[in-house]
Amino acid sequence: MNWKEIDTYAKHWIKEAGERIRASFGLELTVETKSNANDLVTNMDKATEEFFYEKINQQFPEHRILGEEGVGEIIQDLKGIVWIIDPIDGTINFVHQQRNFAISIGIFEDGVGKIGLIYDVVHDELYHSFKGGGAFMNGIRLPDLKPVPVKETILAINASWINSNKLIPKEKLIKLVSDVRGTRSTGSAALELAYVAAGRYDAYVTLRLSPWDYAAGLLLVQEVGGAVTDVYGNDIDFLKKSSIFASRPGLHEEMIDTYFKNE
Amino acid sequence: MNWKEIDTYAKHWIKEAGERIRASFGLELTVETKSNANDLVTNMDKATEEFFYEKINQQFPEHRILGEEGVGEIIQDLKGIVWIIDPIDGTINFVHQQRNFAISIGIFEDGVGKIGLIYDVVHDELYHSFKGGGAFMNGIRLPDLKPVPVKETILAINASWINSNKLIPKEKLIKLVSDVRGTRSTGSAALELAYVAAGRYDAYVTLRLSPWDYAAGLLLVQEVGGAVTDVYGNDIDFLKKSSIFASRPGLHEEMIDTYFKNE
Repeated sequence: MNWKEIDTYAKHWIKEAGERIRASFGLELTVETKSNANDLVTNMDKATEEFFYEKINQQFPEHRILGEEGVGEIIQDLKGIVWIIDPIDGTINFVHQQRNFAISIGIFEDGVGKIGLIYDVVHDELYHSFKGGGAFMNGIRLPDLKPVPVKETILAINASWINSNKLIPKEKLIKLVSDVRGTRSTGSAALELAYVAAGRYDAYVTLRLSPWDYAAGLLLVQEVGGAVTDVYGNDIDFLKKSSIFASRPGLHEEMIDTYFKNE
Repeated sequence: MNWKEIDTYAKHWIKEAGERIRASFGLELTVETKSNANDLVTNMDKATEEFFYEKINQQFPEHRILGEEGVGEIIQDLKGIVWIIDPIDGTINFVHQQRNFAISIGIFEDGVGKIGLIYDVVHDELYHSFKGGGAFMNGIRLPDLKPVPVKETILAINASWINSNKLIPKEKLIKLVSDVRGTRSTGSAALELAYVAAGRYDAYVTLRLSPWDYAAGLLLVQEVGGAVTDVYGNDIDFLKKSSIFASRPGLHEEMIDTYFKNE
């Protein structure tokens, strides 16, 4: 398998797809009216996924695609080479802000992650990892993540989950958000994982993501020495929805033990 | 008073200050080590405020400056022309991310806001308002804000306040974050206000800001027809710390009445 070739094509296609999305915006800063918003998202999501489907199918006909829009076949295992694609991660941001969304692509061989790509389309920042070869942002190598204590942690977490979720006791989440240095929420799982990989967030916790939301980000974070599991520390099954907890090393076990585990 | 001239200088200086900050980053993506982090912030904050102080003092010696770093004189009234300056708003982001921070400048004449400037330094986005002349992002006019219902609202709010604050009953904030379409948190008050002005967030609520954090943002939001008050709907005193609630029109009264007011 020529992984260098796959890598080159993937990077080229994700940039080209981003360019198409940017071109679709026009020059006005207004977001589309709310009544058309869902249509717009569906159309652009689908068009972008179809773009990848056509490119991949033509160049690598034996590869399979697991995408949010379901353009490819139904995938029930990760045998061979599978591209896990979210054409627009952060659709609400896409509609409301026309920024802070990303294209997310994870490429796996027999269930092992090889390439992670997250493209922050509007800010033109491409996060890229190649298994064993490091992780990069626009070609600049991302350094390995070092531990930090909880009190110096910038935690990405959605405010609306703190008081009602089925996984983590409320009192513990309330304590966590007051123990950390600060909380943030971007509204795109792919970008939040890319930010963990780049050391801009120290941790990210989220309660229910689909494989296309987290596949690429998981590979990026792992490539720089970070840890990614569900909120109880279990490995991720790339065919299932899951909670996701990504963080710097060290911090990972401490946060799971102190804040996430049910007694 | 030649406001066109003041406006031209202010825009020129904020861009130049941003360029100096960007140049200070170097090429590495790592943030400074935490032990040096506070020093770094203090130095760059102070150097940037001094830069403005020197420029303003030289060009407009009669103008006064109210800045976070206290470089100018002590200001106890808003007579004459006063520049309210935050040289780096979002200092934690500055240290942890080297992005998502802004330079914020509001210029007032006898207490009336004339010019608002917020510069997202790393993304090179300059938000600018001129009283009665409109608001702009990189020269593109921002359209007037239209009302949206609460259920379609993207609300900027800090997760750590929901469960412990002295202003708003907890139960109401919990209901609010579950009633809106989504919550976000950027970590820079100036940018969150700029996002409200640009229609990317529909509302922003925060419990304690200083004048330099909100002065420019308030002017931007008001210039596009948005409302800015404290969380109970009172006007803002630009010489005092205050809670801030900025939003689209219509939404403003509804949110205060339903979610913020103590019974």
